[in-house]
Amino acid sequence: MVPFINCFEVPPEADEEFLRRWRATSLYMREKPGFLGLRLHKVTSDSSVNRYVNYVQWRSAQEWQAAHDDGFRALVQDAPWTGRVGQLYEVVASAGVIEL
Amino acid sequence: MVPFINCFEVPPEADEEFLRRWRATSLYMREKPGFLGLRLHKVTSDSSVNRYVNYVQWRSAQEWQAAHDDGFRALVQDAPWTGRVGQLYEVVASAGVIEL
Repeated sequence: MVPFINCFEVPPEADEEFLRRWRATSLYMREKPGFLGLRLHKVTSDSSVNRYVNYVQWRSAQEWQAAHDDGFRALVQDAPWTGRVGQLYEVVASAGVIEL
Repeated sequence: MVPFINCFEVPPEADEEFLRRWRATSLYMREKPGFLGLRLHKVTSDSSVNRYVNYVQWRSAQEWQAAHDDGFRALVQDAPWTGRVGQLYEVVASAGVIEL
Protein backbone atom coordinates (compact mmCIF):
# COMPACT_ATOMS: atom_id res chain seq x y z
CA MET A 1 0.00 0.00 0.00
CA VAL A 2 1.36 3.40 -1.05
CA PRO A 3 -0.05 6.62 0.43
CA PHE A 4 -0.38 9.63 -1.83
CA ILE A 5 -0.94 12.87 0.06
CA ASN A 6 -1.73 16.28 -1.32
CA CYS A 7 -1.75 19.33 0.95
CA PHE A 8 -3.79 21.78 -1.14
CA GLU A 9 -3.62 25.52 -0.74
CA VAL A 10 -7.01 26.67 -1.94
CA PRO A 11 -8.23 30.25 -1.42
CA PRO A 12 -11.66 30.19 0.28
CA GLU A 13 -13.31 31.89 -2.69
CA ALA A 14 -12.23 28.94 -4.88
CA ASP A 15 -13.84 26.25 -2.69
CA GLU A 16 -16.69 25.47 -5.07
CA GLU A 17 -14.42 25.21 -8.10
CA PHE A 18 -11.89 23.15 -6.15
CA LEU A 19 -14.51 20.64 -5.00
CA ARG A 20 -16.00 20.38 -8.48
CA ARG A 21 -12.54 19.56 -9.88
CA TRP A 22 -11.63 17.26 -6.99
CA ARG A 23 -14.82 15.23 -7.51
CA ALA A 24 -14.26 14.91 -11.25
CA THR A 25 -10.63 13.90 -10.76
CA SER A 26 -11.45 11.42 -8.00
CA LEU A 27 -14.22 9.78 -10.03
CA TYR A 28 -11.69 9.41 -12.85
CA MET A 29 -8.93 8.02 -10.63
CA ARG A 30 -11.03 5.52 -8.73
CA GLU A 31 -11.61 3.60 -11.94
CA LYS A 32 -7.87 3.13 -12.44
CA PRO A 33 -6.11 -0.16 -11.61
CA GLY A 34 -4.49 0.02 -8.18
CA PHE A 35 -6.73 2.72 -6.69
CA LEU A 36 -7.71 1.58 -3.19
CA GLY A 37 -9.43 4.51 -1.48
CA LEU A 38 -9.28 8.15 -0.47
CA ARG A 39 -10.34 10.69 2.11
CA LEU A 40 -10.60 14.41 1.60
CA HIS A 41 -10.02 16.54 4.71
CA LYS A 42 -11.03 20.18 5.09
CA VAL A 43 -9.48 22.43 7.70
CA THR A 44 -11.85 23.47 10.51
CA SER A 45 -10.03 26.68 11.50
CA ASP A 46 -9.90 29.83 9.39
CA SER A 47 -6.29 29.17 8.46
CA SER A 48 -5.42 29.92 4.86
CA VAL A 49 -2.69 27.27 4.34
CA ASN A 50 -3.25 23.63 3.45
CA ARG A 51 -7.02 24.10 3.61
CA TYR A 52 -7.59 20.68 2.05
CA VAL A 53 -5.60 17.49 2.55
CA ASN A 54 -6.30 14.63 0.16
CA TYR A 55 -5.19 11.19 1.44
CA VAL A 56 -5.24 8.47 -1.20
CA GLN A 57 -4.04 4.89 -1.10
CA TRP A 58 -2.67 3.06 -4.13
CA ARG A 59 -1.61 -0.55 -4.44
CA SER A 60 1.75 0.38 -5.98
CA ALA A 61 3.79 3.37 -7.10
CA GLN A 62 3.72 2.00 -10.65
CA GLU A 63 -0.08 2.00 -10.78
CA TRP A 64 -0.20 5.48 -9.24
CA GLN A 65 2.17 6.74 -11.92
CA ALA A 66 0.30 5.04 -14.76
CA ALA A 67 -2.98 6.63 -13.58
CA HIS A 68 -1.59 10.13 -14.11
CA ASP A 69 -2.24 10.04 -17.81
CA ASP A 70 -3.48 12.54 -20.38
CA GLY A 71 -7.06 12.19 -19.10
CA PHE A 72 -5.95 13.12 -15.62
CA ARG A 73 -3.88 16.07 -16.82
CA ALA A 74 -6.83 17.42 -18.78
CA LEU A 75 -8.96 17.38 -15.61
CA VAL A 76 -6.49 19.33 -13.47
CA GLN A 77 -5.44 21.84 -16.11
CA ASP A 78 -5.70 25.46 -14.87
CA ALA A 79 -6.73 24.26 -11.43
CA PRO A 80 -7.61 26.97 -8.88
CA TRP A 81 -5.03 25.92 -6.30
CA THR A 82 -1.40 26.85 -5.97
CA GLY A 83 1.83 24.87 -6.33
CA ARG A 84 2.48 21.92 -4.07
CA VAL A 85 1.79 18.89 -6.14
CA GLY A 86 0.99 15.73 -4.22
CA GLN A 87 3.65 13.22 -3.28
CA LEU A 88 3.96 9.54 -2.56
CA TYR A 89 4.91 8.71 1.03
CA GLU A 90 5.89 5.77 3.17
CA VAL A 91 4.74 5.27 6.75
CA VAL A 92 7.87 5.57 8.89
CA ALA A 93 6.32 5.47 12.36
CA SER A 94 3.00 4.85 14.03
CA ALA A 95 1.48 4.69 17.49
CA GLY A 96 -1.92 3.92 18.96
CA VAL A 97 -4.87 3.00 16.80
CA ILE A 98 -5.82 4.99 13.72
CA GLU A 99 -9.45 4.53 12.72
CA LEU A 100 -10.47 5.31 9.20
CA MET B 1 -12.78 11.55 15.94
CA VAL B 2 -10.84 14.67 14.94
CA PRO B 3 -7.91 14.45 12.49
CA PHE B 4 -4.93 16.69 13.10
CA ILE B 5 -2.60 16.92 10.10
CA ASN B 6 0.76 18.58 9.86
CA CYS B 7 2.52 18.94 6.50
CA PHE B 8 6.10 19.55 7.61
CA GLU B 9 8.70 21.25 5.47
CA VAL B 10 11.96 19.82 6.76
CA PRO B 11 15.25 20.36 4.93
CA PRO B 12 16.93 16.98 4.32
CA GLU B 13 19.93 17.92 6.46
CA ALA B 14 17.59 18.36 9.44
CA ASP B 15 16.06 14.88 9.23
CA GLU B 16 17.81 13.50 12.30
CA GLU B 17 16.93 16.48 14.47
CA PHE B 18 13.36 16.49 13.16
CA LEU B 19 12.84 12.80 13.98
CA ARG B 20 14.38 13.22 17.43
CA ARG B 21 11.96 16.06 18.16
CA TRP B 22 9.00 14.30 16.59
CA ARG B 23 9.60 11.21 18.73
CA ALA B 24 9.91 13.23 21.94
CA THR B 25 6.77 15.23 21.13
CA SER B 26 4.79 12.15 20.13
CA LEU B 27 5.75 10.26 23.29
CA TYR B 28 4.58 13.28 25.27
CA MET B 29 1.31 13.65 23.38
CA ARG B 30 0.29 10.01 23.40
CA GLU B 31 -0.01 10.19 27.18
CA LYS B 32 -2.58 12.98 26.94
CA PRO B 33 -6.31 12.35 27.37
CA GLY B 34 -8.01 12.05 24.00
CA PHE B 35 -4.97 10.95 21.98
CA LEU B 36 -6.04 8.05 19.76
CA GLY B 37 -3.20 7.33 17.34
CA LEU B 38 -0.82 8.70 14.73
CA ARG B 39 1.12 7.89 11.61
CA LEU B 40 4.19 9.70 10.35
CA HIS B 41 4.68 9.68 6.57
CA LYS B 42 7.92 10.47 4.78
CA VAL B 43 8.03 11.48 1.14
CA THR B 44 9.59 8.87 -1.16
CA SER B 45 10.64 11.27 -3.93
CA ASP B 46 13.41 13.85 -3.66
CA SER B 47 10.88 16.66 -3.41
CA SER B 48 11.75 19.34 -0.92
CA VAL B 49 8.22 20.38 0.11
CA ASN B 50 6.06 18.67 2.72
CA ARG B 51 8.72 15.99 3.26
CA TYR B 52 6.88 14.69 6.32
CA VAL B 53 3.15 14.45 6.93
CA ASN B 54 2.02 13.69 10.46
CA TYR B 55 -1.53 12.30 10.72
CA VAL B 56 -2.91 12.22 14.26
CA GLN B 57 -6.36 11.38 15.56
CA TRP B 58 -7.86 12.96 18.68
CA ARG B 59 -11.13 12.18 20.38
CA SER B 60 -12.15 15.85 20.46
CA ALA B 61 -10.91 19.30 19.53
CA GLN B 62 -11.05 20.27 23.20
CA GLU B 63 -8.65 17.50 24.22
CA TRP B 64 -6.34 18.32 21.31
CA GLN B 65 -6.26 21.95 22.43
CA ALA B 66 -5.67 21.07 26.09
CA ALA B 67 -2.74 18.82 25.13
CA HIS B 68 -0.88 21.76 23.58
CA ASP B 69 0.34 22.97 26.95
CA ASP B 70 3.60 24.42 28.26
CA GLY B 71 5.26 20.98 28.20
CA PHE B 72 4.44 20.62 24.51
CA ARG B 73 5.63 24.12 23.68
CA ALA B 74 8.95 23.48 25.39
CA LEU B 75 9.49 20.40 23.23
CA VAL B 76 8.90 22.17 19.91
CA GLN B 77 10.76 25.37 20.72
CA ASP B 78 13.33 26.30 18.04
CA ALA B 79 12.24 23.35 15.93
CA PRO B 80 14.17 22.77 12.68
CA TRP B 81 11.20 23.01 10.36
CA THR B 82 9.54 25.98 8.78
CA GLY B 83 6.16 27.66 9.23
CA ARG B 84 3.02 25.70 8.54
CA VAL B 85 1.68 24.72 11.91
CA GLY B 86 -0.64 21.72 11.95
CA GLN B 87 -4.40 22.08 11.69
CA LEU B 88 -7.52 20.24 12.72
CA TYR B 89 -9.57 18.85 9.83
CA GLU B 90 -12.88 17.19 9.14
CA VAL B 91 -13.41 14.42 6.62
CA VAL B 92 -15.62 15.89 3.91
CA ALA B 93 -15.58 13.05 1.37
CA SER B 94 -14.36 9.50 1.03
CA ALA B 95 -14.36 6.66 -1.47
CA GLY B 96 -13.15 3.08 -1.53
CA VAL B 97 -11.44 1.48 1.42
CA ILE B 98 -8.67 3.20 3.34
CA GLU B 99 -6.55 0.79 5.37
CA LEU B 100 -4.62 2.15 8.31
